[in-house]
Amino acid sequence: MEREADVIIVGAGLSGLYAARELKAAGYEPLILEANDRTGGRILTESPLPGIPLEIGAQWIGDTHTRMFRLAAELGVQTYPQFEAGETKYELCGTGVLDQTEFYQRFGDDVASVNRVLATLDTLAATVSAEAPWLAPEAAQWDAITAGAWYDAQGLTPIARTLLEICTVGILAVPTVEVSFLHLLFTIQTCGVGAALFSEAEGGAQTTRFVGGTAQLTDRLAAQLSDQLILDAPVQTIEHSGDSVTVHCRGGRTFRAKRAIVAIAPTLASRILYDPALPGVRDQVTQRMPHGSAMKAFFIYEEPFWREDGFNGQFISDVGPAHMSNDTCIEGREEGVILAFLEGAQARTFHRWDEIKRREALIAQMVRVFGPKAAHPIAYVDGEWTERPWTRGCYNANMGPFVWTTYGHALSAPIGPLHWASTDTATQWSAYMEGAVESAERAVGEVLQSLA
Amino acid sequence: MEREADVIIVGAGLSGLYAARELKAAGYEPLILEANDRTGGRILTESPLPGIPLEIGAQWIGDTHTRMFRLAAELGVQTYPQFEAGETKYELCGTGVLDQTEFYQRFGDDVASVNRVLATLDTLAATVSAEAPWLAPEAAQWDAITAGAWYDAQGLTPIARTLLEICTVGILAVPTVEVSFLHLLFTIQTCGVGAALFSEAEGGAQTTRFVGGTAQLTDRLAAQLSDQLILDAPVQTIEHSGDSVTVHCRGGRTFRAKRAIVAIAPTLASRILYDPALPGVRDQVTQRMPHGSAMKAFFIYEEPFWREDGFNGQFISDVGPAHMSNDTCIEGREEGVILAFLEGAQARTFHRWDEIKRREALIAQMVRVFGPKAAHPIAYVDGEWTERPWTRGCYNANMGPFVWTTYGHALSAPIGPLHWASTDTATQWSAYMEGAVESAERAVGEVLQSLA
Repeated sequence: MEREADVIIVGAGLSGLYAARELKAAGYEPLILEANDRTGGRILTESPLPGIPLEIGAQWIGDTHTRMFRLAAELGVQTYPQFEAGETKYELCGTGVLDQTEFYQRFGDDVASVNRVLATLDTLAATVSAEAPWLAPEAAQWDAITAGAWYDAQGLTPIARTLLEICTVGILAVPTVEVSFLHLLFTIQTCGVGAALFSEAEGGAQTTRFVGGTAQLTDRLAAQLSDQLILDAPVQTIEHSGDSVTVHCRGGRTFRAKRAIVAIAPTLASRILYDPALPGVRDQVTQRMPHGSAMKAFFIYEEPFWREDGFNGQFISDVGPAHMSNDTCIEGREEGVILAFLEGAQARTFHRWDEIKRREALIAQMVRVFGPKAAHPIAYVDGEWTERPWTRGCYNANMGPFVWTTYGHALSAPIGPLHWASTDTATQWSAYMEGAVESAERAVGEVLQSLA
Repeated sequence: MEREADVIIVGAGLSGLYAARELKAAGYEPLILEANDRTGGRILTESPLPGIPLEIGAQWIGDTHTRMFRLAAELGVQTYPQFEAGETKYELCGTGVLDQTEFYQRFGDDVASVNRVLATLDTLAATVSAEAPWLAPEAAQWDAITAGAWYDAQGLTPIARTLLEICTVGILAVPTVEVSFLHLLFTIQTCGVGAALFSEAEGGAQTTRFVGGTAQLTDRLAAQLSDQLILDAPVQTIEHSGDSVTVHCRGGRTFRAKRAIVAIAPTLASRILYDPALPGVRDQVTQRMPHGSAMKAFFIYEEPFWREDGFNGQFISDVGPAHMSNDTCIEGREEGVILAFLEGAQARTFHRWDEIKRREALIAQMVRVFGPKAAHPIAYVDGEWTERPWTRGCYNANMGPFVWTTYGHALSAPIGPLHWASTDTATQWSAYMEGAVESAERAVGEVLQSLA
């Protein structure tokens, strides 16, 4: 027995770190066991050039992420707004690259039909409880079809259907046919902002960035918890009884506590051996929460030349390799940064290419969209998540048909002394940093109540 | 280091045991590490009454299961035919219970339309290679929709659609909307018999049973391998390099070999920690192969009274709790045995009931279908698989949309000294015992070639 604590937390992502901080503040001794050699989980800031921190993982918070704004303020991490001024570029369904004005002139009806569908999604999502989506009046029907099938049935034009797919895959990081329609409605409802989820506009999910990089948050949390944090400690076995857990890590290291909070994604949580074994319904839900696929590719230029040309750095494209981009310049720096997103099928395909070829294909797209100035970035970096053994995919876990209605109740329910966190178990902003914190609050609340 | 061998095999199900036997026959030393305290995996024979061996798991082989007939002969296990004489009962879409004759009189057109759909499935499946379903000419389209959505689009009557769903769920053990249409076609093609898959008729998958119970096979294989088999040894870590594997079991037991064959279902294989970590594509495919849900409930009567009444012991019902049944009498015994199947949603719902209530609900159905003689079985036994920690669902793993086309190539491809077996990786009779043996043959072939 290497060490005892009150509560062992599995995973030093945002959820686990936040849970540990809250437990410590409440007078309990937490101990975080992290498999990786770093903290942060799906938060990972890398600087290809000094002073240019870029987010391989989580990047933004939105206006309603009140927990995150509070946490950043408490940790002394400053924020700045996402740059939005200017027009978006479009290349969809063989039109070639169009400026926003021309795109709206030619395809205004298509855009209007997408907005009508988003408004319908809002209306339907309003009937879905984020705490218990399986109780929605039409849950059974909505969980019996895929989001893609529902989209297909909306009578959209190819332009509109493609636009809707790209926007949705930008959230889910898997094709819409891989998720249940109820899951899509849950995703919208858990964010509480309806169609704004799909935009970087006011009220949306992606309005605000962190000075110095998102990892400032988890780094500072980890620094406050340095005596309660063990890295390179993959948890392999959790023996549990009513009032105790014994946790075995790879290599024979053993720890004991009164409770455990497993603050990793459900798929990864299923890879721990629990003794006694967990109920079948819990096991089966964790078999049904595969992670999406997402890559981010960053181009650093001498300056943000697109801004002078009246563009916001965003494109929406079905040509690819990337389907979307945006302006990711660092506040206070002269360099220009464009972030290209590869999500779902794009990430699955292009992450298998070698980096040089992938970069070439993406630069060809950048030149096509933003002109010849885009041809010569001064630096490039990209990042992928399925290859990282302690994450295995991004942004989050998505439910296929019948998962919510059959197994949803088992997703976060405690089992004896075992509690479950991670943004994938959140009921507010699930899949976002806000959800990581919300799920940690919920798990800590359960633990405090049971220990009181 | 407790022990060294040539090849470590993870899992003492049929696939692992067969692989070990083949390796031993080829002059190599295998070592099987089994997590459970028994061999057999998804084969489990229980006898609620002496002389009445019943199959909680795999029960039948079919006429084209040549490997299984050969193996049974080699092991001295006798076979006998599934009883088929007599008529089936139907209760579908509010008709009440109907004899087969009346059902066909009233709903002959519906049955004919189901047969037309099955014939279409055969035609389409013929274009799908079981070795590489992602190469089928229409793979992309077929993998983009669910089997359920394709069924819905066939213009069937409620009776026909319900009949088709029940027959298909009887194979997949999940609702058809949970699997990709390409996966359904793969499933048909892997069996090489088309629509016969759905029947117990000649050429089908369920024509033949084993004297003394299916576990005779795995018991006798295990007896031949008693020096190469360690029970209660859950594998948690596999360290691997080009020419060696070091395998760590729970509790610190360590074994070494030149190669490993991981002969457990892909979902369970994902729960092992591999060092170095496996490629992302391999990890993601194992995240996307959830196990189905199946329960079998057996009623033992003094005699098979239904046979005298002209019935074959089979019903097809959308009332439930069971959707299908058949005659599972033991050859040479006077007792009558009816086996009721609960698959997909039925298993998920009723396995959460306590056994007494579940038995009552099923007996009510038996009386409704087979009359008052069914009210008083002399014994009852049922079995479920999601609660069993080393199986976690039956009958097998099923692929949702885009899994085959995106990840299929990574399902059974060796990685360094690691090879993959289990019926879920088979290309002939995947999900059946025949597939377990076929996958073991393939994995052993790979190992022998690499060691030669």
